[in-house]
Amino acid sequence: MIIIMKTGVERDLIDAVVDRVQELGLSANVIEGEERTIIGVVGLPLPPTLDEMFEVMPGVENVVRVTKKFKLAGWDFHPQKTTITIDDLIIGGDGITIVAGPCSVETEDQTLETARAVAAAGATVLRGGAYKPRTSPYEFRGLGERGLEILARAREETGLKIITEVMTPSDVEIVGQYTDIFQIGARNCQNYLLLEEVGKAMKPVMLKRGLSLLIEEWLLAAEYVMAQGNPDVILCERGIRTFENATRNTLDVSAVPVLQSLSHLPVFIDPSHAAGKRAFVGSLSLAGIAAGADGLMIEVHPSPDHAMSDGAQSLDFVEFAELMPRIGAVTEAVGRGSSVPSTPAI
Amino acid sequence: MIIIMKTGVERDLIDAVVDRVQELGLSANVIEGEERTIIGVVGLPLPPTLDEMFEVMPGVENVVRVTKKFKLAGWDFHPQKTTITIDDLIIGGDGITIVAGPCSVETEDQTLETARAVAAAGATVLRGGAYKPRTSPYEFRGLGERGLEILARAREETGLKIITEVMTPSDVEIVGQYTDIFQIGARNCQNYLLLEEVGKAMKPVMLKRGLSLLIEEWLLAAEYVMAQGNPDVILCERGIRTFENATRNTLDVSAVPVLQSLSHLPVFIDPSHAAGKRAFVGSLSLAGIAAGADGLMIEVHPSPDHAMSDGAQSLDFVEFAELMPRIGAVTEAVGRGSSVPSTPAI
Amino acid sequence: MIIIMKTGVERDLIDAVVDRVQELGLSANVIEGEERTIIGVVGLPLPPTLDEMFEVMPGVENVVRVTKKFKLAGWDFHPQKTTITIDDLIIGGDGITIVAGPCSVETEDQTLETARAVAAAGATVLRGGAYKPRTSPYEFRGLGERGLEILARAREETGLKIITEVMTPSDVEIVGQYTDIFQIGARNCQNYLLLEEVGKAMKPVMLKRGLSLLIEEWLLAAEYVMAQGNPDVILCERGIRTFENATRNTLDVSAVPVLQSLSHLPVFIDPSHAAGKRAFVGSLSLAGIAAGADGLMIEVHPSPDHAMSDGAQSLDFVEFAELMPRIGAVTEAVGRGSSVPSTPAI
Amino acid sequence: MIIIMKTGVERDLIDAVVDRVQELGLSANVIEGEERTIIGVVGLPLPPTLDEMFEVMPGVENVVRVTKKFKLAGWDFHPQKTTITIDDLIIGGDGITIVAGPCSVETEDQTLETARAVAAAGATVLRGGAYKPRTSPYEFRGLGERGLEILARAREETGLKIITEVMTPSDVEIVGQYTDIFQIGARNCQNYLLLEEVGKAMKPVMLKRGLSLLIEEWLLAAEYVMAQGNPDVILCERGIRTFENATRNTLDVSAVPVLQSLSHLPVFIDPSHAAGKRAFVGSLSLAGIAAGADGLMIEVHPSPDHAMSDGAQSLDFVEFAELMPRIGAVTEAVGRGSSVPSTPAI
Repeated sequence: MIIIMKTGVERDLIDAVVDRVQELGLSANVIEGEERTIIGVVGLPLPPTLDEMFEVMPGVENVVRVTKKFKLAGWDFHPQKTTITIDDLIIGGDGITIVAGPCSVETEDQTLETARAVAAAGATVLRGGAYKPRTSPYEFRGLGERGLEILARAREETGLKIITEVMTPSDVEIVGQYTDIFQIGARNCQNYLLLEEVGKAMKPVMLKRGLSLLIEEWLLAAEYVMAQGNPDVILCERGIRTFENATRNTLDVSAVPVLQSLSHLPVFIDPSHAAGKRAFVGSLSLAGIAAGADGLMIEVHPSPDHAMSDGAQSLDFVEFAELMPRIGAVTEAVGRGSSVPSTPAI
Repeated sequence: MIIIMKTGVERDLIDAVVDRVQELGLSANVIEGEERTIIGVVGLPLPPTLDEMFEVMPGVENVVRVTKKFKLAGWDFHPQKTTITIDDLIIGGDGITIVAGPCSVETEDQTLETARAVAAAGATVLRGGAYKPRTSPYEFRGLGERGLEILARAREETGLKIITEVMTPSDVEIVGQYTDIFQIGARNCQNYLLLEEVGKAMKPVMLKRGLSLLIEEWLLAAEYVMAQGNPDVILCERGIRTFENATRNTLDVSAVPVLQSLSHLPVFIDPSHAAGKRAFVGSLSLAGIAAGADGLMIEVHPSPDHAMSDGAQSLDFVEFAELMPRIGAVTEAVGRGSSVPSTPAI
Repeated sequence: MIIIMKTGVERDLIDAVVDRVQELGLSANVIEGEERTIIGVVGLPLPPTLDEMFEVMPGVENVVRVTKKFKLAGWDFHPQKTTITIDDLIIGGDGITIVAGPCSVETEDQTLETARAVAAAGATVLRGGAYKPRTSPYEFRGLGERGLEILARAREETGLKIITEVMTPSDVEIVGQYTDIFQIGARNCQNYLLLEEVGKAMKPVMLKRGLSLLIEEWLLAAEYVMAQGNPDVILCERGIRTFENATRNTLDVSAVPVLQSLSHLPVFIDPSHAAGKRAFVGSLSLAGIAAGADGLMIEVHPSPDHAMSDGAQSLDFVEFAELMPRIGAVTEAVGRGSSVPSTPAI
Repeated sequence: MIIIMKTGVERDLIDAVVDRVQELGLSANVIEGEERTIIGVVGLPLPPTLDEMFEVMPGVENVVRVTKKFKLAGWDFHPQKTTITIDDLIIGGDGITIVAGPCSVETEDQTLETARAVAAAGATVLRGGAYKPRTSPYEFRGLGERGLEILARAREETGLKIITEVMTPSDVEIVGQYTDIFQIGARNCQNYLLLEEVGKAMKPVMLKRGLSLLIEEWLLAAEYVMAQGNPDVILCERGIRTFENATRNTLDVSAVPVLQSLSHLPVFIDPSHAAGKRAFVGSLSLAGIAAGADGLMIEVHPSPDHAMSDGAQSLDFVEFAELMPRIGAVTEAVGRGSSVPSTPAI
């Protein structure tokens, strides 16, 4: 950590900071520049709020933390890329994983029909919400456990793995009885008690980025899961909130290489929530793969204009089937393959 | 609701939209402009996701919702401003309410000492976190129930009301046994199950604005609480996330008059979390009152540079005592008084 | 245009709005809903500030403009995609155009050496700043006309077209004597007098997006150029300003499909200014092409760590030469070719 | 400047950085921590792009600049607050300055009438645009020199000082023949050639903040003016662009104390452009004064709903006259007076 003193502060303020550093069992290296003095703080481990502590001392201009606050999610102690294996499905390996399905599980027919369609087109994981967070209390909130049963039936029939959202700690057990992957939604990305609960559950967790979360904060959220012993976290960029409103959110496609430079965890893109309009989902899917994402999560519905949620951004079966070979072409162009050994039967 | 068709779409696309409107039991008024056709949809109640449903229909350019999605939080069905009464304390009335105290309850001494100091300076509510959400899993997380007990002791001794954060639905009961006001933190502003749980608890709820929440979404979050039967919601603006990083967050002071134009609920300002640096807390406090806020929530700590959280933005007792008369002067300038009848013993 | 009245306004306020509409020679269609009245305004042409005029009338809740404010940049009156031809170079056609070169023209050697390297790797346009906008008045500001001469020499030797920035109306003439394409920088995207001056100059104009410009405002900026008679505008997305600071700016890759849905103008991506760090330039280049961009503008410098500006985001010759075949592979995967008929001699 | 090396980099990369520092005539202090090495760079003056230069060297994680890039605008070399005197008007002194007037000069009657009204209510400077930047090329662009003449006539009659916008370097001379204060609009805040031109003109300059300009960048823009020898710069916060759209822009009221901590220049607030709606102008005016602003700039029009620009955010004469005493009360509450000795004849 580096403490930058204000211009021309008196000697005793500098001494006070140095004393405080030493009081904490750390050591201080003082560098006197022409304009300012800076103090390098060395020693381990640094308390997490050490920077705040020094920022308020008289004469201090600024404090810069050198070490990252996340440990388990970073490369330093885990120099291999994380791959997650669920039976024959490998996430984060050489291949690309395509997750597809409806926003909400509405009926058994709708879900099974969609599962068959996305499997036929080459998806290997089925998404579908049984517990839905909705901005308004007056909207459809999901089928609950009945929805989980329907997803399980779809898995049985199609062989797809399933992913579904869990919204609150007390639901982790029931959702964990059915799902292959827990999904933590954007609004719950800093719901720390929920993160810890799925951290104890020992099934892979897909952590969607909060609407205005810094990448470093997102990795700290992943750290919450990992600190409970669960190493299998997938990060999913789904658009951030900016001033631009031509799209529902702004896909931060740069998050893919940025995350890959900071972390060994697999990175997915959700083009559907980013775009908010189905017409842009194809372009964003291809952009995500080209940027290096390990997978995509795409909303697909048998009849988007009758969907109970997110219809505007869902593809229908034909649109999804037409998009998949385009995704395949870009996947190949960036030197990657599919996440399952077998060739999908399109 | 208004449906705007694309330029030059054919008749049958317009008819399809009209048919769909009628199929839903609503009526459609078609206006043919020189360039475009627009369709006004009339009828009640409009399903909450009706706009999404029409946005995906072929030929539709855009859909504009005319009615607001929130009902209970708005003026339409509640033409008087909400005032919340807790014993002799009135929030949202003619007077201004000052909430003050430490970020976290750390020890009994620290809390009681702070309670006495802020009461002496004129605050009427004590804040203090017993359950703390922290960005990193390695930071101090609060004392839990022991913290609640300390707050209750401070109330007993000073007569201050208390407010403390609740982070998860299963904690609502225990926190409710101690607190006068539930605080929902910014990160949980869209934790809907938590909102519903405090909605059932029938004690006032202060709902802090999420980091990048639109004002309309914030009112919908309040609606979640109110829809459970709890009318006593206080909205607290605490800074939003923008590109500017000279302050921890950007205080959206305009939220005060905007909320007051849309809602009857009391509006508070938290200058401490907005500023992130104690040097700016005074200016933002005065700005908040001048803009029309019903109260302030200010972090105060006996020794900010030894605080276990948020030390950089906490005032010490002297700073707080010096700020209070300045707040008083602006309060008077905007024609408002204090929220308690008695004169504080400064 | 649609005027939405407040809930329960009295008849005479509605009448006043209708009168005002008719006073302007337009016609008003009144739709009375259960809760509100809305008024559709029909007639052409609508004055550009008509919405503001009605927003302030008593009883009016909101005004929604139906027609777009830009005309020349939109599809309505120009149903074919714009292609720009400069000798044998076609921009916006089937192929992809790669613009490359240093941020600033520093010396003749540096520029010629770079021109040869990027031409050999397959670029067809050379970028280089002779007049540089710099955030601080104490930074290098470019060589001025001497820089333009050097660019012209590089064109002569390599056959590359050249693009260079013009910063102020009075420089349009001198820059126009040398350049093939005018570049308008992000900071000047709403410098309307400059836009009009290049609009009169009748050479293609690349208009970089302002740091926080809405896509609609950007198209209106293009409209300024086009309204002077110059149809050859290229839009270049170069990252917008958001809360995230892991990258210099946030590349809004969605702008590519959004612009293509609204406008016939060619769209480029500048991955260098978006990323701000060379390690991310490759990923963003591929993402841009995959999203459908018509070209890329990439900063290349013989020795980035000795560059006088933007060294951190510039590729060296080897990095650029290695990136080009990867770009080529994605270009092919999305079914597009190169913008010049001949095969580059790598 | 501090250079932070990556974890575990080899000795020769550290040596290479140290060599480069010394090559530039600066000295390097190496601090070896448990995890990382950091290098303090000492010596003056540091080249402005030194940080970029080191950021790209192998093994470097991050570079932190310790010294501020702006000099003339900061407190270090100018420890007194700047006050600007124009005849008997003092800006930035103990008192508050109220600038008021129409967005655009439309006619002589409209301008004179407004001038009389705002003078009677206590304003001391008249605003009015003769050259207008407009988002669309099809909107009213101002009366040009005729507008300047009208402003001069209003000054003659009322004794108000005048402020008007200059949009391009070649207009500085003509505008300077009439105006008392140059206004640089938000869109031109980084139009560096314009900044330099008004820097040479030796009349006070009000520099409005660019829509998404960091405070540090804004001070660097002021530095452009000051570096030409003109010390009289007023900074005017007018709202920044954020995700929230309930107001036209988001007033960053914290900018007032932040600027005052960094700079000796006077700071104004423009509540009209920030709010975009007249109903919020009053609250934001009071908030600005309470936060410590040296003045306000408020749009006033004889008949806002007939204004040729910005009608929605303009106050009429009655609204302005009613607001002024409320501003006066808050001014007094924060211990400041009016900027002119005489009492305005209300």
